[in-house]
Amino acid sequence: MDKKISEKIINRLTLYHCILDDYINKNIEFIASNQIATLLDIDDSQVRKDISVLNNSGKCRVGYIVKELKKSIETTLGFSKTKNAFIIGAGNLGMALAKYDNFTNYGLNIIALFDNDTKKIGQTVNNKLILDIEKLPNLSKKSNVDIAILTVPKNFAQSTADFLVKSDIKYIWNFTPAVLSVPKNVQVWNENLMGNFLQFTYNI
Amino acid sequence: MDKKISEKIINRLTLYHCILDDYINKNIEFIASNQIATLLDIDDSQVRKDISVLNNSGKCRVGYIVKELKKSIETTLGFSKTKNAFIIGAGNLGMALAKYDNFTNYGLNIIALFDNDTKKIGQTVNNKLILDIEKLPNLSKKSNVDIAILTVPKNFAQSTADFLVKSDIKYIWNFTPAVLSVPKNVQVWNENLMGNFLQFTYNI
Repeated sequence: MDKKISEKIINRLTLYHCILDDYINKNIEFIASNQIATLLDIDDSQVRKDISVLNNSGKCRVGYIVKELKKSIETTLGFSKTKNAFIIGAGNLGMALAKYDNFTNYGLNIIALFDNDTKKIGQTVNNKLILDIEKLPNLSKKSNVDIAILTVPKNFAQSTADFLVKSDIKYIWNFTPAVLSVPKNVQVWNENLMGNFLQFTYNI
Repeated sequence: MDKKISEKIINRLTLYHCILDDYINKNIEFIASNQIATLLDIDDSQVRKDISVLNNSGKCRVGYIVKELKKSIETTLGFSKTKNAFIIGAGNLGMALAKYDNFTNYGLNIIALFDNDTKKIGQTVNNKLILDIEKLPNLSKKSNVDIAILTVPKNFAQSTADFLVKSDIKYIWNFTPAVLSVPKNVQVWNENLMGNFLQFTYNI
């Protein structure tokens, strides 16, 4: 589907997908929109509207067919298309993301981690090798990977981003608290944790 | 300020704040809206509109006065009000967040981590103690902490959330890939990493 779906809808659909996954694990066959709505504390009408953007036919009197709705979300959001990525920085956050098995369910395949710490290079995390950052340009071209997940310390964020750009990385998922300066043809997604926290706790 | 500011604006203002912080470190005194716009790949008019919601007087012919604009953002978003929180789960992600010194700049003060692994209990991370999860209810009441950052494995997410609710935690920042079921008086913010990734890479 080439229809443009808004970021908010994509975000909510991923959460519905988590819920459906949970239902499947519990062997529950059907789900009503208001069950999803209650879990996420949003409007029932919102849930129905979001689901209406999918090519979903699994609707019946008692609600949606869990397996079919899950499949519809996967098709629409393109989970099935595997996207390969590198993790840059094998610190705690990089390690945590390398161990985050949920990624593969969503089509994100971590190929390897990179670091410049000789003590870490050569080790494996969750069956993924930690490689010398110097090897990145070569491997990125060979394996056709253009997504990098950046988890280095803030002070090294910009210089590492420059290095990634030179290595033909086109998408940087930025977990550092630095705003990166990159050329127009490179896209950055800022995982703005503090922004989220401030939104969350704004009314406290 | 009690004026309601949209989540998107709060998110962007936090990113502007990162940029300003960087400018201060580089001893740069002034910043133009289009410098911010270029770094974030957004419209100049958007930046000016966002800044107009602040009580900011530090405007001059060459742009904004960096220090004053930074202060205005802090005042408006309430960075100065310290919010205490616990991290639940001292795995890689919990450790990474405990080490994330940027949090304190934004008024988030991590009091302690909690885990049920006896090998971890008693250790410190970034001067924060890892405590036995059993001690949480008592400490939460004593120290008046009602924010929990949840980083346990997915399988333990719901049972841990139930325990947090019983311990009078009112805000759960959920880093697990599980959708939590909680009472109406408890707020959950889902750090929906996969949703973000899918938004980011939707057009790849």
